[in-house]
Amino acid sequence: MSAAPENDIEEGLVFQPRFSADGLITCVTIDDASGEALMVAHMNAEALDKTLASGVMHYWSRSRGELWRKGDTSGQVQTLVELRVDCDQDALLARVRVGGDGGACHTGRRSCFYRRIERGAEGPRLALIEER
Amino acid sequence: MSAAPENDIEEGLVFQPRFSADGLITCVTIDDASGEALMVAHMNAEALDKTLASGVMHYWSRSRGELWRKGDTSGQVQTLVELRVDCDQDALLARVRVGGDGGACHTGRRSCFYRRIERGAEGPRLALIEER
Repeated sequence: MSAAPENDIEEGLVFQPRFSADGLITCVTIDDASGEALMVAHMNAEALDKTLASGVMHYWSRSRGELWRKGDTSGQVQTLVELRVDCDQDALLARVRVGGDGGACHTGRRSCFYRRIERGAEGPRLALIEER
Repeated sequence: MSAAPENDIEEGLVFQPRFSADGLITCVTIDDASGEALMVAHMNAEALDKTLASGVMHYWSRSRGELWRKGDTSGQVQTLVELRVDCDQDALLARVRVGGDGGACHTGRRSCFYRRIERGAEGPRLALIEER
C-alpha cells in the first residue's frame, strides 16, 4: 500500500473531500467524552473550511439554506477534537467536546438518536430511549 | 412532549423514514462491541425493509447501483443489534455485530475512517491512523 500515489483517494494522504451533486458532504459527530453518536449533519466547502480553520464545528443547514455555526443560538458549541475522512472521502467523522449543557439535539436531548426502531407484527415502530 | 401526535416526525412513535430525492437514507454503522464507527452508507426502501426483516444489514451501493447485503462477498456480515432514527428521521444509526474477520472496510481495515485530517500550514493533509 505504500506504493499508492499521494493523491490516491483511498490510500493517499491528499485530502480530497468528495462533495455530492448538491455540494455537501455528510458528517457524523461523536461526543469525544462518551463516544456517543450525537448527530448526522452536512457541510458544504465553506462549512468545512471554517471548521478546520476555527476548530469549531460549522455545518450547512439544508432546511434553512444557510451556514450554521453549531451553538450560536443554543450555546451547544462543538469544539473539534479530531476529524477523520472515510475510504472514498465522501463522509466525515468528527469527535467533539460539547459546550453549553452538553447536548446536541434541538429537541433538548443530548443525541439526535433518541428513538429505537422496533420490529412489530404490524411493521416497524419507534420506542423512546431513556437518556442515561 | 407526551401531547405530540403519534405521527409527529420528531416526537411521535410512527417510523417515517425520510428518503432523499434519490430515494436514499444515510446509515451510520457502529461496532456494537467496541463502539467504533465503522462506516457510513446508504439504504433505499428495499435495503431498509430487508435489514429490518432479516436482522442483517443491507445497503444500496451508489457506485454499483445495486442492493447489497453486506458481507456477501467479504464474509463481513453485519448482524443488527439496534437500529435508531434521528430527530428528523433522515438518518439511521445501526449497532452491529460484525462477522468474518470483524472488519467493515473493503480496504482491509476494520473501519472506513482510518485517516485523520490534520491542519498544516499549506492546508489540510491526511495522516494514517494505526489500528489498535
